[in-house]
Amino acid sequence: MVYVMTLQCEDLPGIVHAASTAIVAVKGNILENDQFTDPVTNLFCMRTRFESPASLEDARTRLASDLSRFSPRLGLRAEDVRRRALIMVSTSDHCLVDLLYRRENGDLPVDIVAVVSNHPDLAPLAARYKVPFYEIPVTPPTKVAAEERLRELVVDLGVDFVVLARYMQVLSPELCDELRGRIVNIHHSFLPGFKGARPYHQAYERGVKLIGATAHFVTAELDDGPIIDQDVIRVSHARSSGDLVALGRDVERVVLARAVKLIAEDRVALVGRRTVIFSQ
Amino acid sequence: MVYVMTLQCEDLPGIVHAASTAIVAVKGNILENDQFTDPVTNLFCMRTRFESPASLEDARTRLASDLSRFSPRLGLRAEDVRRRALIMVSTSDHCLVDLLYRRENGDLPVDIVAVVSNHPDLAPLAARYKVPFYEIPVTPPTKVAAEERLRELVVDLGVDFVVLARYMQVLSPELCDELRGRIVNIHHSFLPGFKGARPYHQAYERGVKLIGATAHFVTAELDDGPIIDQDVIRVSHARSSGDLVALGRDVERVVLARAVKLIAEDRVALVGRRTVIFSQ
Amino acid sequence: MVYVMTLQCEDLPGIVHAASTAIVAVKGNILENDQFTDPVTNLFCMRTRFESPASLEDARTRLASDLSRFSPRLGLRAEDVRRRALIMVSTSDHCLVDLLYRRENGDLPVDIVAVVSNHPDLAPLAARYKVPFYEIPVTPPTKVAAEERLRELVVDLGVDFVVLARYMQVLSPELCDELRGRIVNIHHSFLPGFKGARPYHQAYERGVKLIGATAHFVTAELDDGPIIDQDVIRVSHARSSGDLVALGRDVERVVLARAVKLIAEDRVALVGRRTVIFSQ
Amino acid sequence: MVYVMTLQCEDLPGIVHAASTAIVAVKGNILENDQFTDPVTNLFCMRTRFESPASLEDARTRLASDLSRFSPRLGLRAEDVRRRALIMVSTSDHCLVDLLYRRENGDLPVDIVAVVSNHPDLAPLAARYKVPFYEIPVTPPTKVAAEERLRELVVDLGVDFVVLARYMQVLSPELCDELRGRIVNIHHSFLPGFKGARPYHQAYERGVKLIGATAHFVTAELDDGPIIDQDVIRVSHARSSGDLVALGRDVERVVLARAVKLIAEDRVALVGRRTVIFSQ
Repeated sequence: MVYVMTLQCEDLPGIVHAASTAIVAVKGNILENDQFTDPVTNLFCMRTRFESPASLEDARTRLASDLSRFSPRLGLRAEDVRRRALIMVSTSDHCLVDLLYRRENGDLPVDIVAVVSNHPDLAPLAARYKVPFYEIPVTPPTKVAAEERLRELVVDLGVDFVVLARYMQVLSPELCDELRGRIVNIHHSFLPGFKGARPYHQAYERGVKLIGATAHFVTAELDDGPIIDQDVIRVSHARSSGDLVALGRDVERVVLARAVKLIAEDRVALVGRRTVIFSQ
Repeated sequence: MVYVMTLQCEDLPGIVHAASTAIVAVKGNILENDQFTDPVTNLFCMRTRFESPASLEDARTRLASDLSRFSPRLGLRAEDVRRRALIMVSTSDHCLVDLLYRRENGDLPVDIVAVVSNHPDLAPLAARYKVPFYEIPVTPPTKVAAEERLRELVVDLGVDFVVLARYMQVLSPELCDELRGRIVNIHHSFLPGFKGARPYHQAYERGVKLIGATAHFVTAELDDGPIIDQDVIRVSHARSSGDLVALGRDVERVVLARAVKLIAEDRVALVGRRTVIFSQ
Repeated sequence: MVYVMTLQCEDLPGIVHAASTAIVAVKGNILENDQFTDPVTNLFCMRTRFESPASLEDARTRLASDLSRFSPRLGLRAEDVRRRALIMVSTSDHCLVDLLYRRENGDLPVDIVAVVSNHPDLAPLAARYKVPFYEIPVTPPTKVAAEERLRELVVDLGVDFVVLARYMQVLSPELCDELRGRIVNIHHSFLPGFKGARPYHQAYERGVKLIGATAHFVTAELDDGPIIDQDVIRVSHARSSGDLVALGRDVERVVLARAVKLIAEDRVALVGRRTVIFSQ
Repeated sequence: MVYVMTLQCEDLPGIVHAASTAIVAVKGNILENDQFTDPVTNLFCMRTRFESPASLEDARTRLASDLSRFSPRLGLRAEDVRRRALIMVSTSDHCLVDLLYRRENGDLPVDIVAVVSNHPDLAPLAARYKVPFYEIPVTPPTKVAAEERLRELVVDLGVDFVVLARYMQVLSPELCDELRGRIVNIHHSFLPGFKGARPYHQAYERGVKLIGATAHFVTAELDDGPIIDQDVIRVSHARSSGDLVALGRDVERVVLARAVKLIAEDRVALVGRRTVIFSQ
C-alpha cells in the first residue's frame, strides 16, 4: 500500500528522525519526501509518500505515537483513496470543461462529487460526465439559505475541498473562515494586480504587456487569500480587452488545474498568508 | 541611406498611400513597415524603415509635404545617427553594468552620453567605459537645483531620452511633464502590483509565485506611467526576500535593456496611457 | 465589408504604393497591415486587412490590376467567410476536444467541416459538436485508396487546410506535395529534437529539462516541414515518461490551436523552408 | 556550523532513518532535505543541509558509520567553505563577464580560482576581478601538452569543477572521462537540437520559433552529456541569424550561471545519463 503523510508542527530538532523511525517500524520505504520550515511562522511542513504493508490504522497509530511530542497536525491517507472535490461555477464553462476532461483522461487524481451552480446553464456539461449537478440560485434574500445548502452538501458528500471554477458570487466571511484552506478560487488576473471585477478590462486600460491568472485559497478578504499558483501570457497592444478575456481563459484553466492537482495530491501546505508547494 | 520614419496622427483613410507616394518619390524602398490604430484614442501610429538615395532634408520635406493634410507628428532620422541616452543611477549597479556592456558589444544601438547619480559609487564603472559621470546629490533643499542641473545636461548633451536604471529618487511632477515620453524607469515589480518601496519584500509577504519587473515611461504619478515591457520569473516558497531581490536583478536588467533598445530604435509609440510597441 | 488581402511576390520598390493606391481606389481604409521581405528568398509578403464598400469582385479586380506588374500571388477574402478546415485524428482526443471547444465558444474563427479518422473512437466527440465524421481505416493494402478518399473529401467539402491533430499515420509524399502549405501537424516534441516516434520517451531518456511541441506544415520529409509555432514547458527529473506525455498534452493543444488560428486568419506565409507569422 | 551533506547509494529501506539518526547524534537540526530515487538506475540521492555544533570530522565520522551498510558515496562540507571553480573561455566574454559579476555581488557562492583561455583576449577582464589568468594556446601538436597543463592546474589549485564558458576547443575523451561530472559546458542551442558548430545559424535555417541554451556535463561524446539546465527565448521570422546570436547570449549566460550555482551548492546529482536537480 502506498501512503501519503502530511505533517505540520513547530520546528524542533528530531522530527524527521521520529517520522522515519515510525516508517521503519511499519516496514515502510520512503518513495518521496519533501519538507520545509517557514521562517516567518517557524512552522515545519513535511509530505512523505511511502510504501508499507501495514494497514492505514496501524500506520497512523504508529506515526501519531512516535511524533506525539511534536503535537503535529498529521494527515495520512492511502494514495488510491482520492480526495473529494465539489466544483462551483456560474455560466463560464472553460474551467469546468477542463477539470472534467482531465479527471476523465486520468490526469487529475480527484473525485469530482458534485457541480454546484447559481445558474442552470452548465447542468448538461456535468450530466455528460455523470457528475451530480445542484442548482443553488443566489439572490440577496436567499444567500444565507444558499450557503446553508452548500454546507450540507460539503458534509453529506464528504467533500475535502471546494473549487470555485469561475463562480461569480462572493462567499460570506463566515463560510470562508469555516472552510479555511479548503476553498480554492481562480482569479483572472495576476494578483495582487487587478483585484475585483473585470480584471481584463482593467489590464487593458493599464496597458500591461503580460496578463495572468492566480489560483488561491479563499479568505474573507476578497482576492487576498494565500496564492497556490500563478501564470502569465504575453499580450501586445493590438489585443482588445475581448482578446484578453479569450487569451486569459487558457491561463485560467491551466493554473486552476495545476492547483487542483496539487491539492488533490496533498502538495499544498498553508503557513500564515503563504503556501508551501511540494511540487514535482 | 537607411531612414527610420515615425508618424502619428488621427486615423483617416489614405495615410499609408500618402506616405508610400512620398517614399516612391524619393526613390525609396521600404524595408520594414509597422502600423497600428489605437481604438481608444483613434490615433494612427506608423514606423517605416526605408532605403533611399535622397538626403535627410529632401526626404523630410517630401514626406512633410505629402502628409501635410493629416497634420502628423512626423519623425525622421538616418538610422546610423544613434539616439542619445542619459542614464541615472544611485548605488545599485546591475542595470548600468548591463547597459554599458550591451552598448559596447554592439547589441544596443544607442549613444550613452552621460551617467548621472546622486551618489559617487558608480563613477569608476562609468569611467571604465569612458562615459562622463556627473554626481548630482539630491537632498530636500537641493532638489530643485539638482533638477535644474539635470535639465541643463539634457539640453547641453542633446539627450533624446533619460533612463532611470534603479535611480532611487522621485522626480518632480514638473520635470516628468516636461520630459513626457522621454524618461524610462525600471520598476522592480510586475506593475500594477507592488508599487512604491521594497516591492520584493511586499511580494514575499504576499507569497506570490512569480516576481517581475516593469519598464515604463515616467509620469507625475508614481509607478503609473505607460508600460513598455514587463517580464516575470518563477519563485518558490523556499526563496527568502533576499533571494527575490537577487533573482529580480536578472529580470530587471533584461527588461530595461529591451525597453532601451525599443526606444533607441523608435519602436515605441505613446497613445494615451498605453504604448504601441513595433517589435521585431 | 472587411477584407483580408495576402500578397507574395519578388521584392521590388513600389509594391506598398501600388497596393495602397488600389485600396484608396476602392474607398478602402486599412485596419491592419503587416509586411516582411525574406532575405533568403527575396520574397516580399504582405497581409492587409481593410474596410471597403466595394464588392469582393471589384476589390479583387482592382488589386490584381494595380499590382499586375509584380506578378504577385494574391489572396483576397471577405473576413466573415471563414476558412474551412478538415481535422484528422487517430485515438487521442485532447487536441480535437480543444479545437472543437474553441470553435464553439468563438475563439477560433474557422469552419470545421469534417473529422476524419483511421479509428472509430472519436466519432461520438465529433457528433456531440455536430461535425461530420468519416472513418477511413488505413492498412498497407488500403493506404492508396484511403488517401484517394481523403482527396475527394478535400475537394468535395471545399477544404482550405487539413489539421493533423495527433493523426498517427504518415501521409504519402505525393499527397504532402499536392497539399503543400495546406496541412498542419502537431509534433509532440520541440523540433528538431526528437523526431519520429515516442518523442516523450526519447526526451525522458535524454534527461531534458524542458519538453515541447511544434506545429508545422507537413512535407514529404517526416517532421521536417516549416515550423509555424512551438512552445515548451519545464519538467523536473522526478517526472516519468508517462508524466511527460500528460504534461505535453497541454503544450500540444495550445500550440496547435494557435497555429490553426494563425492559418485561419491568413497570418502565415511560407517562404522556402521557413514561415513568416504576422501575429498580433 | 551549517553543513551540506550529499549521499548516493542503491535504494534500500532505512537510509533516511540512518541519516537522521546520525544527525540527531551530532545534535544536528535539518534545515533543508531533498531526496530522489531514480527509477532507471535505482540510485537513491539525498542532499541535506543541517546545523550542528559538531566538527566536520566528527560529523563525517558519525554519518559514515551510521550509513556504512548502504555503502554510500557520501559528501560533507561546511557551507561556508566554497566550491572552487576554474573557468575556461576563448574570445567571447559574455558568460565570463556574467559569472565574475555575480560572484562579486554575492549571488554566486563559488570561488573562481582561475580563468584559462586559449587566447589572450580576456586577460584584462580576469585582471579587473583579480582572478589569475592562464593562457594555454591549443594547436594540434600542442593539444596533449595543453591538457596536461590543465590537469596540473586542476590539481594544484584544488579545483572542484571546471566551467566551459564558451570555450571553443573540444576536450579529449580521456580528460572528459577523468573529470566526469566535474566539467560543465554551455551549449548555445536547445539540445538535442543543433549539436555541433554554429547552432544559431542552423536554427535560423530551420526556422525555429524559439532558440535556447543548454548547460550540461561534458562527456566524451560531443554535446551529449547529462543536462543540468536549459532555457529558451521566443524569436520571430524577422530575426537574422546575427540577431539570434545576440539574443542567445542572454539565455546562455543565465542558464550557465544557474548551472554553476546549482553545482556550487551541491544541488546536482548524476544518475546515469540524467541529472537530479535539488532546486529551491
